[in-house]
Amino acid sequence: MTPHAAVKPLDETARAAAQARQAQLTKPAGSLGQLETLAITLAAMQGRPLPRIQRPWISIFAADHGVAEEGVSAFPQAVTQQMLANFVGGGAAISVLAGETGATLEVVDVGTLAPAPVAGVIHAQAARGTANFCRQPAMTATQAQVALDVGAAACARARAGGADMFIGGEMGIANTTAAAALACALLGLPGAALAGAGTGIDSAGVARKAGVIDRALALHGLAAASSPDPLHALCAVGGFEIAALTGAYLAAAQAGVPVLVDGFICSAAALLAVRLNPGARDWMLFAHASAESGHATLLCALDARPLLALDMRLGEASGAAAAIPLLRLACALHAGMATFDEAGVAHG
Amino acid sequence: MTPHAAVKPLDETARAAAQARQAQLTKPAGSLGQLETLAITLAAMQGRPLPRIQRPWISIFAADHGVAEEGVSAFPQAVTQQMLANFVGGGAAISVLAGETGATLEVVDVGTLAPAPVAGVIHAQAARGTANFCRQPAMTATQAQVALDVGAAACARARAGGADMFIGGEMGIANTTAAAALACALLGLPGAALAGAGTGIDSAGVARKAGVIDRALALHGLAAASSPDPLHALCAVGGFEIAALTGAYLAAAQAGVPVLVDGFICSAAALLAVRLNPGARDWMLFAHASAESGHATLLCALDARPLLALDMRLGEASGAAAAIPLLRLACALHAGMATFDEAGVAHG
Repeated sequence: MTPHAAVKPLDETARAAAQARQAQLTKPAGSLGQLETLAITLAAMQGRPLPRIQRPWISIFAADHGVAEEGVSAFPQAVTQQMLANFVGGGAAISVLAGETGATLEVVDVGTLAPAPVAGVIHAQAARGTANFCRQPAMTATQAQVALDVGAAACARARAGGADMFIGGEMGIANTTAAAALACALLGLPGAALAGAGTGIDSAGVARKAGVIDRALALHGLAAASSPDPLHALCAVGGFEIAALTGAYLAAAQAGVPVLVDGFICSAAALLAVRLNPGARDWMLFAHASAESGHATLLCALDARPLLALDMRLGEASGAAAAIPLLRLACALHAGMATFDEAGVAHG
Repeated sequence: MTPHAAVKPLDETARAAAQARQAQLTKPAGSLGQLETLAITLAAMQGRPLPRIQRPWISIFAADHGVAEEGVSAFPQAVTQQMLANFVGGGAAISVLAGETGATLEVVDVGTLAPAPVAGVIHAQAARGTANFCRQPAMTATQAQVALDVGAAACARARAGGADMFIGGEMGIANTTAAAALACALLGLPGAALAGAGTGIDSAGVARKAGVIDRALALHGLAAASSPDPLHALCAVGGFEIAALTGAYLAAAQAGVPVLVDGFICSAAALLAVRLNPGARDWMLFAHASAESGHATLLCALDARPLLALDMRLGEASGAAAAIPLLRLACALHAGMATFDEAGVAHG
C-alpha cells in the first residue's frame, strides 16, 4: 500500500442534503446532539443522504513486542497467543460484542510469537514479534511495509464483504508501551506524558514504563524531535499491529470506507496515519475515550470528540463495537423520523 | 400509590455472585469500565447473577403547562398535542428508537389540553393542563395524587407486560420551566441556577425564564426554603408529567423494577421521588447527561453518573432509549465471555 496516495473526497452534496433533512425532522434543531452530526457525517462519507450501518467489519490485529522483556505489562507475554484462540473461540469481549452487534469479526496474526498458524486466525506475520526497542529498532522498514500491507489487505477484505464501516482492533502484551512511545515521538512528548497503567500496572510500573520510553526515544533520536519522519518513528518504537491498523486506516480513507477508531493504541495508529496522509482524518470517527491516561492527549492531537466515555481500557476494538448501536440509531432516526410537514407539527 | 411505602431491597447475593464472575472473565480487571458495574448493578436489581434486558418498557407522559403563557418556550403550546399523534404515528424520535431497540412504547396523556382522547394514546388526564404557577399553585393535592397514580399504573402495566426495565419519558411545552422550578425548590437554588435553553430559547429568554421561576418560588414560599415539603413543591410549581414520572419511579422501586432515568425533566422527577422516598435511588440508573444546562446540577444532587453524554436535549426518553443497547451489551459480555480457566488464558 502507498501511504501518501490521495484519499477519497467526502461527498459534500450528500452532506448538505442530510443537513437539510435534519432541520425538518420533528424535534428542536440540534436536540439530538451528536446523533445528528453523526448522521450528517456518515452521509458525507457514504455519499448518500440516508446513510446506514448494516455491515460493520472488525479486524483484530495481534502482535508481540520485544519491549515486554522490560517488564512493562501486568500480564505475561504468552497471553497474546492465548487470546488469539479466545477471539476465534468466542470467549473474548470482542467476540461477544461482534456477535451482539452483527459485525463480521476476523483475527489477523500480524506478528505474534506463535510458532505456527492458529486455527481460525489469518496468519500474516511480518515477523515473530518486534525487537526490544530499548536496544535496537523495533522493526525494519521492510517489516513495517509488510505490516502496513497486512492492514490494507484487511480493508480490502472488508470492502469485498460489503462493509459499510471498518473497525480495527488490537491485541498485544506491552503494546500500550509501543503506542505511547510512537505517539511521544510524533508529538514531541516525554514518556511520562503518555505512559499509563495499560492492563493494570501500578504507579511504580508506570514510572518504569515512562523511563523505558524515554530511553528508547533517546536511543533512536526521537526525544522531543521536531517533526520526525513518521515511518522512522514507526520502525524505531512501533509495533506490527499498530502498523497494520495504520495501513488499514489509510487504505479505508483511500477507498472511501468510514473508519471507527477504538481506544489508545488505535488512536496512536490513527495519529500515525494522519501524519503520513492528513486527508485520512476525514474518514475517521472516534468511538470512545479510554481510561488509559494518555488517550485524552491523543484525541486532542487528532481533534477528535469520541462518542462514549465508559472508562473502558480493554482494546480489542471493544469500545468501537460498543458504539456501533449508536451509529445505527443515528442513521435510523435520520431516516425514520417524520418531518414537521409530514406530522403536522408546528415549527419552533 | 403510596410514595412512602418501602422499596424492594436489592439482592446482595446476586450482586456478589456477579462481581465474582466479572473477576474471572478474560480481560484485565475493571477494563470494561461502566459495562462491568452496570452488569453487577443489574444483577443486584434483578436478583440474578446473569441479568438481562429483554423487555424494556417506555411510557411517555404528556402534559401541558399554564406557565407557557409567560413565553418560556420556543415552540407554541399546540405542539404538545401535535406530538401525541406523532408519537403513536411512528414519526417521533422515541417512536424510531423504541422500534430499533425493541422496546414497548406507550403514550399517556396525563394532562394535556387535548379536549378529547387521542387515538392510540392512554387518556388519563389529571386535569387539562396545570394552572400558571406564577399566579396560583400549578395543581391541587388531589390532582397531584391522580398524576402520581397514573405513573404507578404505567409501571403496573410494564410489570404485567414482563418488563425488565422501566423507562419514563415526557412531552410538554414549557416543562423545562416546571422541572427547573421544582428542582430549585427542592435544592434551595435560584431560577438562574437551573433555567436553560429548553427547546431553544435565546439568552434573553433564559433570563426571562429564570425570573419567572424566581417569582413563582417567592409566591409559593419556596425561595431558598430549607427542606420544603416535596409534595407542596410539586403542587406549587410542578407538572402532571413530572408527577407521573415520580409515581412511576416510586412504584418501580417498590416493585423491584430497574429504572433508566432520561434527561433533565426526568431527573427532576427522580429527585422528587428520592426526596419522597430515599430508597428509590437504589433502583435508578441514569442514561445520559443532557445538554440542558441545569442537568449537571441535578445529576450531582442525585449522585448519578450517566452512561452517555451526546449533547442530547430532546426529552421523550430519547436519551434513555439510546442507552438501551449499552445495557444489553453489558449483560451479554457478563454472560457470554469466557473465564480465564475456560479459555486457558493466564491471569495477570
